[in-house]
Amino acid sequence: MIKLESNGAPFSSCSDRFNQTGYRKGIGLLETFERLHEIKGLNGTGLMCPLEYESLDYVRARYAAYGWQVGTVCPDTYMSPEWGDGSLMNRDSGIRRHQIDLFKQSMDLAAEFPGSDVLLWLANDGYDYPFEDDYARRWDLLMDALSELAEYRSDVRLSLEYKMKEPRTHQYVSNYGKALFICEKLKYDNLGVVVDIGHSLFAGENPAEAVAITGKYNRLFHVHLNDNYRSWDDDLIFGSIHFWETLEMFYVLKNMNYDGWMSLDIWPARGDGFKALQESVDRVYMFADIVEKLPHSEIARMQAKNETADILKIVRQHSINSAL
Amino acid sequence: MIKLESNGAPFSSCSDRFNQTGYRKGIGLLETFERLHEIKGLNGTGLMCPLEYESLDYVRARYAAYGWQVGTVCPDTYMSPEWGDGSLMNRDSGIRRHQIDLFKQSMDLAAEFPGSDVLLWLANDGYDYPFEDDYARRWDLLMDALSELAEYRSDVRLSLEYKMKEPRTHQYVSNYGKALFICEKLKYDNLGVVVDIGHSLFAGENPAEAVAITGKYNRLFHVHLNDNYRSWDDDLIFGSIHFWETLEMFYVLKNMNYDGWMSLDIWPARGDGFKALQESVDRVYMFADIVEKLPHSEIARMQAKNETADILKIVRQHSINSAL
Amino acid sequence: MIKLESNGAPFSSCSDRFNQTGYRKGIGLLETFERLHEIKGLNGTGLMCPLEYESLDYVRARYAAYGWQVGTVCPDTYMSPEWGDGSLMNRDSGIRRHQIDLFKQSMDLAAEFPGSDVLLWLANDGYDYPFEDDYARRWDLLMDALSELAEYRSDVRLSLEYKMKEPRTHQYVSNYGKALFICEKLKYDNLGVVVDIGHSLFAGENPAEAVAITGKYNRLFHVHLNDNYRSWDDDLIFGSIHFWETLEMFYVLKNMNYDGWMSLDIWPARGDGFKALQESVDRVYMFADIVEKLPHSEIARMQAKNETADILKIVRQHSINSAL
Amino acid sequence: MIKLESNGAPFSSCSDRFNQTGYRKGIGLLETFERLHEIKGLNGTGLMCPLEYESLDYVRARYAAYGWQVGTVCPDTYMSPEWGDGSLMNRDSGIRRHQIDLFKQSMDLAAEFPGSDVLLWLANDGYDYPFEDDYARRWDLLMDALSELAEYRSDVRLSLEYKMKEPRTHQYVSNYGKALFICEKLKYDNLGVVVDIGHSLFAGENPAEAVAITGKYNRLFHVHLNDNYRSWDDDLIFGSIHFWETLEMFYVLKNMNYDGWMSLDIWPARGDGFKALQESVDRVYMFADIVEKLPHSEIARMQAKNETADILKIVRQHSINSAL
Repeated sequence: MIKLESNGAPFSSCSDRFNQTGYRKGIGLLETFERLHEIKGLNGTGLMCPLEYESLDYVRARYAAYGWQVGTVCPDTYMSPEWGDGSLMNRDSGIRRHQIDLFKQSMDLAAEFPGSDVLLWLANDGYDYPFEDDYARRWDLLMDALSELAEYRSDVRLSLEYKMKEPRTHQYVSNYGKALFICEKLKYDNLGVVVDIGHSLFAGENPAEAVAITGKYNRLFHVHLNDNYRSWDDDLIFGSIHFWETLEMFYVLKNMNYDGWMSLDIWPARGDGFKALQESVDRVYMFADIVEKLPHSEIARMQAKNETADILKIVRQHSINSAL
Repeated sequence: MIKLESNGAPFSSCSDRFNQTGYRKGIGLLETFERLHEIKGLNGTGLMCPLEYESLDYVRARYAAYGWQVGTVCPDTYMSPEWGDGSLMNRDSGIRRHQIDLFKQSMDLAAEFPGSDVLLWLANDGYDYPFEDDYARRWDLLMDALSELAEYRSDVRLSLEYKMKEPRTHQYVSNYGKALFICEKLKYDNLGVVVDIGHSLFAGENPAEAVAITGKYNRLFHVHLNDNYRSWDDDLIFGSIHFWETLEMFYVLKNMNYDGWMSLDIWPARGDGFKALQESVDRVYMFADIVEKLPHSEIARMQAKNETADILKIVRQHSINSAL
Repeated sequence: MIKLESNGAPFSSCSDRFNQTGYRKGIGLLETFERLHEIKGLNGTGLMCPLEYESLDYVRARYAAYGWQVGTVCPDTYMSPEWGDGSLMNRDSGIRRHQIDLFKQSMDLAAEFPGSDVLLWLANDGYDYPFEDDYARRWDLLMDALSELAEYRSDVRLSLEYKMKEPRTHQYVSNYGKALFICEKLKYDNLGVVVDIGHSLFAGENPAEAVAITGKYNRLFHVHLNDNYRSWDDDLIFGSIHFWETLEMFYVLKNMNYDGWMSLDIWPARGDGFKALQESVDRVYMFADIVEKLPHSEIARMQAKNETADILKIVRQHSINSAL
Repeated sequence: MIKLESNGAPFSSCSDRFNQTGYRKGIGLLETFERLHEIKGLNGTGLMCPLEYESLDYVRARYAAYGWQVGTVCPDTYMSPEWGDGSLMNRDSGIRRHQIDLFKQSMDLAAEFPGSDVLLWLANDGYDYPFEDDYARRWDLLMDALSELAEYRSDVRLSLEYKMKEPRTHQYVSNYGKALFICEKLKYDNLGVVVDIGHSLFAGENPAEAVAITGKYNRLFHVHLNDNYRSWDDDLIFGSIHFWETLEMFYVLKNMNYDGWMSLDIWPARGDGFKALQESVDRVYMFADIVEKLPHSEIARMQAKNETADILKIVRQHSINSAL
């Protein structure tokens, strides 16, 4: 069974650096919760930390009423100018400590919602220019903070989300190789990786390989879904651009029996956010449906024999609505 | 009716800079012709100039026996070290003259095969380094040569194929905007553009836009088919990577009543070249088939009203083999 | 003499989609004007339209007091959600008419400041998804609007600024080839091109070629200066990343006797905006200084003979602070 | 003291997929050795395995006569169609065994030349299409082979060279993160990483970060030098495109006291190969020279305080030949 959540971005104002008021009128937290629930196919949404709702009891009651779960607890690492120069790697020890504490608070919050994990997207932990940073020295800040967090409580999972750039031109945790290296080096069972399909695509990766190899080492904790044109984090409607790569990622997830959360992370600045999200959800189920149709053992046999053109043919014939 | 040709690359040795003997044993010209004919769905193949066959009569007889046509006449602009520094833009006036004459010879050859056009892929007409070239001065060589060729005989079409790079790091005719500018500036009716879907993709273009706008100005003379990952001319099996963009290009071609040649230009270095080509041909017909199924007037209405999520939904439902 | 202006972005809050309050506290219009004047080496700044100052007389007095000129008049095409779906190409005829009128108003304003031109950066005139648009039909909106503007008054120059993406995933006027095609097709003397070095770099162009070829056809009206990593409009400190390509662009500008405005268009979200701008200005003069040192006729001779390694050597020896 | 070698590519024919005879007439092994020796500034060149020279004694004598060392022993993983589908990861166990044995033979050869290491560039160990491979299964072939090699003899270093693509569209060992993960997971002291500055650039990395972090974990075994435009392995003249990033890499290497080999790996298909190589060598010494001039402790202090604009200024003033 698919565990699928979405954030509230489709109902937010979607401002950017050119349009500071946003491309639409955003709605509030509670109304967003309602609108998300109108989407067919979701079974959860994440929580920010600090908690935006009035109380934990309120959250529990609201989620229970919908039969929903919390998938992600997301500490605020990016919304304030104070951590514009970094979170876990901030050179200012006070700000860094504040962020570490916020992550611990997030872990405590996640512990209240079994099955959820804490998102480690280190938005500003990067750099912009040649000569800006002493890489080896700054790297220690990352490793030390991750160790401290992983040890804080072993019953909550920490999910490191890699991304090459934005809002910095370079982020340290930029691809699945680095994320996996960090996890392997630090060796905590509760430290793993989020594969965001869009981040994977614009890092030049094949997302199916990313989930396969992180999963092989038991580090695939969470999957984010959206799409882009391979040069930026466009956060487009899921499945709208990369059909074959997305299908393959779902195929690999199925074969590895992935049962974690998938989180829709789209940012539809223009047009109807509700429709954009519903179309994204529908495509999640569509890809899962096609995967069921594919002849897995036949494909596996062809892969072992390196018969690529035959594989492409058989996958096409099961996926596309054409007798040809 | 689709006019579809292929070159013989799927049966060539496919050598590259690392493997100079190639990834397979290539076969000869006549055998390649036979193998191409075994592919179901082709109705032609191009000719190189100078002619590789023994005579024009031989060519006519062989093509007639198969009911085939010549789509492309391709002058050799790239196979010899002599024109490694350029063809129509070579700084050596002797080599440049040789190449211009070869293009004229190609036009004479094309005149023997009505419906064919001459391919202007200016392989080495570019540069590699900052400060290497005096751009404005060298540009004149291009414009002058194109003028001379277009005037040589107005009954043969010249099709300029843009490409950003390879084998140079920069080619002058690098995207559809430049190609269209050149055509419009020179104003010869027989000078137009080849949109190679792969070249368009790695130039950062949307191929559907490229055929729409070049076609709007009556400059779309030829279409090349293959696929890649948007950063290099991988010449992969057609339709294997970009499903939606390719479908859209076929949709636009249909709506503009494009009736010119489409040429498969894949380069399957590894695996079975025959299967790679047949799968590419099958996908041509598959895309054409899906385009027939799409509700064109409904899509047009939605486009006019900017209802993007609805468009994505309706296109998906007609294209993909899933009830969801 | 260099005509160099800057916009006020280095003193703005620099908000983005993650940080809606911005990475610093922005300052107001008048204070920004003061701070710009403290930068050594500027001789102007642009005006927005509608005018943000209290009156034209006020502007004239303030600029005169500093000995400054207006380089750019910039119509607001991007700051309001109302034109989030397009400016000159908006499907809503009312919004489109509003924008056309704003451009005309901008032309009237520019006429008050001889030497200034009107910037046509068509921020949202693009699209995001396959199948979203009917390209050929929508293109007419662009050509019709540009014609109307160019005819409105021939004494004011219109400078079309191409950009591949952001805030859309695709903008129509995306590279210098398309921009030049548009100018050539429409044939108005007062319609030309802005080459933004950053937009050129991430369009896969060589900026030196872009200024050379647009200049060759008398369409280079304005130059924007910043830097990036070739995949996005990072708007970094000018000259901080691409040393050789930038130097070459200045070399070509010098050789073509370019005497138009250069506008710094950086967006230093983090760090000291004043220092970022001053360093950018200093690099403008530094590149101009190196260009003076380069042996132009010797380079020209080597270019004609295609002696690339020799060119690289001689340029290096004159540019770099090393006896080696 | 710099340990700098070059391969013989500048004197080879430089054939590619379009021009199978190459852009120049290549010269033989012994003549190439002579020409390399005429280059000022080299102190070695690598050996292929199987050995192309008549005997080990011959090699020793020739190198000794020049006072040269062997930096790299390079097993042939790419020149024959037999390993076109892979080397250490070939699905054919016979071919894979052949390649593993060749690597062992290479280690024995390297043991004869103290200070040399064995290059592991796994040219075809990748894939081209979605669904082509079972990633998790195939990955085992890599890890098993590397373990076997590392254990074969601990006195010879193995240097894993990552590369994103070419000759495949995807190589498994594609960036420094993955390479470091592999080394850390396998834990052999004699398994490390080659940072090829060009591979790093087109993987979207900052090469200075790559050497800093691999070096921090004692895995930086070798450095390759060339340049490109960040989208392909152009193998251009070293330092010809990325001035600041290259300078920074040398700055970091200096600060970490890197004393390993640097290997020029350029591929100058056009123009004078000798001059292209000499210019590359000269730039190596130029960058090393500038690094000496830079005020290291002042830069370190500014880095700790995140004063980026000040850093850019001071680095510029020491590097560029301009009083401005």
